[in-house]
Amino acid sequence: MITLAVDCMGGDHGPGVTLPACRQFLAHHPEARLLLVGQPASLQGLAHERAAVVAASEVVSMDDPVEVALRRKKDSSMRVAIQQVKDGAAQAAVSAGNTGALMAIARYLLKTLDGIDRPAIATQMPNERGGATTVLDLGANVDCSAEHLLQFAVMGSALVSALKNTDAPSVGLLNIGEELIKGSEIIKKAGELLRSAANSGDLNFHGNVEGNDIFKGTVDIVVCDGFVGNVALKASEGVASMIVGALKQEFSRGILTKMAAIVAYPVLSALMRRMDHRRYNGAALLGLRGLVFKSHGSADVLAFEQALNRAYDAARNNLLDRVRARVAHAAPLLTAAGAQTAS
Amino acid sequence: MITLAVDCMGGDHGPGVTLPACRQFLAHHPEARLLLVGQPASLQGLAHERAAVVAASEVVSMDDPVEVALRRKKDSSMRVAIQQVKDGAAQAAVSAGNTGALMAIARYLLKTLDGIDRPAIATQMPNERGGATTVLDLGANVDCSAEHLLQFAVMGSALVSALKNTDAPSVGLLNIGEELIKGSEIIKKAGELLRSAANSGDLNFHGNVEGNDIFKGTVDIVVCDGFVGNVALKASEGVASMIVGALKQEFSRGILTKMAAIVAYPVLSALMRRMDHRRYNGAALLGLRGLVFKSHGSADVLAFEQALNRAYDAARNNLLDRVRARVAHAAPLLTAAGAQTAS
Repeated sequence: MITLAVDCMGGDHGPGVTLPACRQFLAHHPEARLLLVGQPASLQGLAHERAAVVAASEVVSMDDPVEVALRRKKDSSMRVAIQQVKDGAAQAAVSAGNTGALMAIARYLLKTLDGIDRPAIATQMPNERGGATTVLDLGANVDCSAEHLLQFAVMGSALVSALKNTDAPSVGLLNIGEELIKGSEIIKKAGELLRSAANSGDLNFHGNVEGNDIFKGTVDIVVCDGFVGNVALKASEGVASMIVGALKQEFSRGILTKMAAIVAYPVLSALMRRMDHRRYNGAALLGLRGLVFKSHGSADVLAFEQALNRAYDAARNNLLDRVRARVAHAAPLLTAAGAQTAS
Repeated sequence: MITLAVDCMGGDHGPGVTLPACRQFLAHHPEARLLLVGQPASLQGLAHERAAVVAASEVVSMDDPVEVALRRKKDSSMRVAIQQVKDGAAQAAVSAGNTGALMAIARYLLKTLDGIDRPAIATQMPNERGGATTVLDLGANVDCSAEHLLQFAVMGSALVSALKNTDAPSVGLLNIGEELIKGSEIIKKAGELLRSAANSGDLNFHGNVEGNDIFKGTVDIVVCDGFVGNVALKASEGVASMIVGALKQEFSRGILTKMAAIVAYPVLSALMRRMDHRRYNGAALLGLRGLVFKSHGSADVLAFEQALNRAYDAARNNLLDRVRARVAHAAPLLTAAGAQTAS
């Protein structure tokens, strides 16, 4: 039986979204247990034999600075949820709270794995093949060394292995051209490290990929620094919402186009379902000695349930052990790369 | 009368695309002249009283390394076209040839303006407001200092002033959050320089923007390094092509959806027109002592004509003088910023 600790107070909507999502999740997963973390008065809406309330008196708000979340609010629902993982009471924690605070608290309480300097945030983006491409990092690390990118590749491979049950998922290095000579010094160096890792059997390295490859589904995992990853994610969301907006506008232009919209409705809603970013909600914080998943702050019930699903699958498929094993296997390489830099 | 020098041999299609585009352009611009640069035997298809052939015996191919294009092919159509600008025979050059070669040759022949370390590539991306957002840099510079980003902002402002006839276009600094404290050290420093430039009246600086703001149209100009700009552009193209692909697939699923496609056809083609990247073809190489425009290598007739239009408008609106004037006005700031870094 898998137990998840849920920060029920986090996100833009708090218990109004998290509790119904927990209820649905429990209905769909008869083998799962939940620890509902938060202010007990707010959590009375969900009484279930496989759910227990864990009291936490404080709430980290979406705009609390990291320092406040970490030093002042020691009894926050976010922190208590992660503490459940540390104490072994839960196999994974899920929160829709603010990303900076979640990463800082998770790192403080759980610590990073041996061989990992910095945790990374990995998310999934839909691709043309009907699947999803895992991209990391997405905002935790603005300046990354080549060694960090190698660590991300190793951790991303473990994540995709665990969630998709494939042994050797392919890794691409995000660059501005496929040729080896492209990119900054850090990217070129990262390319060398990734090729060494491929030679020693630690990774299935495809080579350089470009921004559009994320959506083509050229590789299973795309590795980049957090700045680039964040810009790529936000730019993609921007384009998608512009196109959807334009579609709506064009269809509502006149009577004939409105009639066309009615005829085309089933097609358009199939399209929207396919593009629905809620299906991809639930980013993994990787590289920690415990599993933590981050939901979009604005998640609705369906989206938050999806983040719970992802955390459940990761826990059930032993993501933590897989990351640990992969990092240990790649340890000689990671150490060599680190030493090279330090020298 | 404005004269453009056209590299008629460049791009994936060469004269098969460039000549018909030149013919259309001449028909639409009774005040324009063209210098058709290339192998005369290939350029016989276009005889026009306002077009003259300028012979060039060689062609830079799409995969020629920069060194080959620059050192070995000294009589290439690309180089001879830019030479026309240097000699004052044309006010701007347009090429669909390979970007690296074009930038290197343009830089070698024309040199950069005083106060500008590195030229940048500026392109337009469509936004929700029905207009376009100018983004730079897009691939010329993978590692940028804060000073380079300031130079890009100054040059981008001149470009938008010239093309849109607005005096103080707004500039955003691409970042991973709107707060001042976000981003790498380079980005924070760039933010400070841009705020100083705003205080001294050199720029209309809006502040930090995120990837989705490009498509929202939050600002007229988005400044970023070439690596990030390239990834954002390619990722956006990837999402758009994924959505269009999914639309086609959903509409061709069965008889009913195919009928819906017929009814919705006018709406969908209006949408495609709006999203048509060909309308935004024609990127400016900024910071040189002469005007050079780059068309997509895969441009068709309509797209290549658009690049010619853009070069024509830039020349007619004295883009070069505007960039020079803006850079000169911002010179004390650019020098101070450069000195700070060197120290």
